[in-house]
Amino acid sequence: MTEVLSVLRIGHRPSRDKRVTTHAALVARAFGADDIVISTRDPEIEKTISSVVSRFGGRFEIRSGIPWNEALRSWGGTKVHLTMYGTPFREAMPKLRGKDVMVVIGAEKVPPAIYQMVDFNLSVGSQPHSEIAALALFLDSYFEGSEDTNKFDDARLQIIPNSRGKTVVERGDEIHQ
Amino acid sequence: MTEVLSVLRIGHRPSRDKRVTTHAALVARAFGADDIVISTRDPEIEKTISSVVSRFGGRFEIRSGIPWNEALRSWGGTKVHLTMYGTPFREAMPKLRGKDVMVVIGAEKVPPAIYQMVDFNLSVGSQPHSEIAALALFLDSYFEGSEDTNKFDDARLQIIPNSRGKTVVERGDEIHQ
Repeated sequence: MTEVLSVLRIGHRPSRDKRVTTHAALVARAFGADDIVISTRDPEIEKTISSVVSRFGGRFEIRSGIPWNEALRSWGGTKVHLTMYGTPFREAMPKLRGKDVMVVIGAEKVPPAIYQMVDFNLSVGSQPHSEIAALALFLDSYFEGSEDTNKFDDARLQIIPNSRGKTVVERGDEIHQ
Repeated sequence: MTEVLSVLRIGHRPSRDKRVTTHAALVARAFGADDIVISTRDPEIEKTISSVVSRFGGRFEIRSGIPWNEALRSWGGTKVHLTMYGTPFREAMPKLRGKDVMVVIGAEKVPPAIYQMVDFNLSVGSQPHSEIAALALFLDSYFEGSEDTNKFDDARLQIIPNSRGKTVVERGDEIHQ
């Protein structure tokens, strides 16, 4: 795979959205995105996510404080906005897989211009729910279920599936349970 | 379908987790669960979710302040705990579909007893991410992609897919764009 998948989080308010945006960033990483761009500056989230990357591996990047219109304009690939008002995402997927895609997810209010600036406005169910869930379903479909594998070869910590407890392996170490 | 799917949210702290738990409850409803039980009392979330149900339809129920051990003990069906430490959820799915299932999702700390009280500890990827995303993927697989349809026949508001804007239909009314 050489396609690049970038997530753009707009409308983040550090005081109110820290936990939801953190979930979105962790989902982006775990489900195979290359990076997340947050349109509001938030050094604390950058630190939280970088810490996860340093422990659990991969090359996922996070940048905050990039204006959303600048991020969209400088993106050369396909632009997708996930919104409950859009058309069903699964129908568009064959046109997206294998291409460079920027996925835009909003908080509560999304500037109306976004709907016009993107190539696709796509819904993950036409119901109010969660941009975290929408992002996860979209990425799961785009990468065709790749969340089930441990893809992060340089991980310092690796979780081994366990039916009754926790198994974490530290690189070059014995198994901790 | 006559199976019952219930979500149990544990470790909710009203001061800190309101938005994340709200997302989890909306995902539960949108992806086909029958109800959500929150182990901590939080009348504000009950009100938020009930308001969505009254506008967007369905019979989804929310109850808060039910101790988690009581909720688990009184459940007669299969009990599943979603955790990044568990075994891959897709492998267990054939044993779960069509059965009554209670899906337990935690906040940061989960009491160790949970791992023993459930029938399955299942992971949606062995990486740290989000219980909201894990719940969405689990329900999407359990109900086999039913999020793409508007299942809520008694909805007062219905969203009609639109590639460039917002279309909301109010029952017995013309289309608002």
